[in-house]
Amino acid sequence: MKLHGYFRSSASYRVRIALNLKGLSVQHLPHHLRKGEQCAPGYLAINPQGLVPTLEDDTGAVVTQSLAMIEWLDETHPEPPLLPRDPLRRAKVRAFAQAIACDIHPVQNLKVLARLRELGLPEEKVTAWAGWVNREGLSACEKLIAGEPGPLCFGDRPSLADLCLVPQLANARRFGVDVNAFPRLLKAEAAAKAIKAFADAAPDKQPDAE
Amino acid sequence: MKLHGYFRSSASYRVRIALNLKGLSVQHLPHHLRKGEQCAPGYLAINPQGLVPTLEDDTGAVVTQSLAMIEWLDETHPEPPLLPRDPLRRAKVRAFAQAIACDIHPVQNLKVLARLRELGLPEEKVTAWAGWVNREGLSACEKLIAGEPGPLCFGDRPSLADLCLVPQLANARRFGVDVNAFPRLLKAEAAAKAIKAFADAAPDKQPDAE
Repeated sequence: MKLHGYFRSSASYRVRIALNLKGLSVQHLPHHLRKGEQCAPGYLAINPQGLVPTLEDDTGAVVTQSLAMIEWLDETHPEPPLLPRDPLRRAKVRAFAQAIACDIHPVQNLKVLARLRELGLPEEKVTAWAGWVNREGLSACEKLIAGEPGPLCFGDRPSLADLCLVPQLANARRFGVDVNAFPRLLKAEAAAKAIKAFADAAPDKQPDAE
Repeated sequence: MKLHGYFRSSASYRVRIALNLKGLSVQHLPHHLRKGEQCAPGYLAINPQGLVPTLEDDTGAVVTQSLAMIEWLDETHPEPPLLPRDPLRRAKVRAFAQAIACDIHPVQNLKVLARLRELGLPEEKVTAWAGWVNREGLSACEKLIAGEPGPLCFGDRPSLADLCLVPQLANARRFGVDVNAFPRLLKAEAAAKAIKAFADAAPDKQPDAE
């Protein structure tokens, strides 16, 4: 299996955690986002969005979009499960993951921030934008799991929710967000980071880390 | 079951189509987004993101995030299925849906456009932003299903992909995007709109339509 990614891409980070939890080894194919390598014609042929990650299996099957990849991995390699069995609990986990993967991450990704710069926004306003998106989104996430005892987002086993949370908190810190405002999220993060599959997927552990 | 929504919200529109396809009747509870009703304390208590839609079942269980709701409905009311059976095909359908629900819709929603106005962007640049997001995203979607015979996005049965596509094309037109650049998407849209469940879910058919 091959994972096209980038060490600092939080969507790639989610998939690296999933692969590690499932015990799957992959060939990592880094695409340097700041150099625009994700827009090379060869890459666009497999991922027309020009985004990382993309997952290719040994038959040449290609899947884009990190959450779709993770559910695919979960359906084809069921142990350990990344979603609960109960439909309502599954929905809660997916909703938390989507609150990050739909409403935070894409509104502060490289492409959107570059567009804000093109529109003439000074750098401090671009950073403020990214901070605002993370702060608003993570505040809601904090409330979504306020009633969950933990220690992870949903119980004591890592789920799709934790796979999205850990990389997003790393982004929030990079954009100067005071994450101490989110004690429940930090509790989940600490529990997740103590798991080797999460630790090994961290950006600074990747071969393309700068 | 109760659906908190708004006639023009494309995420609400997705869920309305799913409910219609499943033959489920719900009580529609409109929240007027332009009047800020989604930020009322009572609503924030059930949806801390302050976004529509939110689905409540008869036991009081609450699910946020439209894709999570649709998968929940699909798991609890399996007929007709909104995802294929084969894991790789499921992943392809989910990836298409997420290309819209993650990378197009949240980057052009009311909240983001309002923020651009607050940053001093004139109205024509705000509309240009929304047009850019839709054009880039839908171009990629066109390529994602270029090899799919159709007539719908993935075969001859409506899937999660069609539920996301039809509302997004409506948004794209509102933002002045020339959708004729996407013939494969228009073919899927025409096939979908011929289905009563899609037609009945259209914004102008809703009780809160203006």
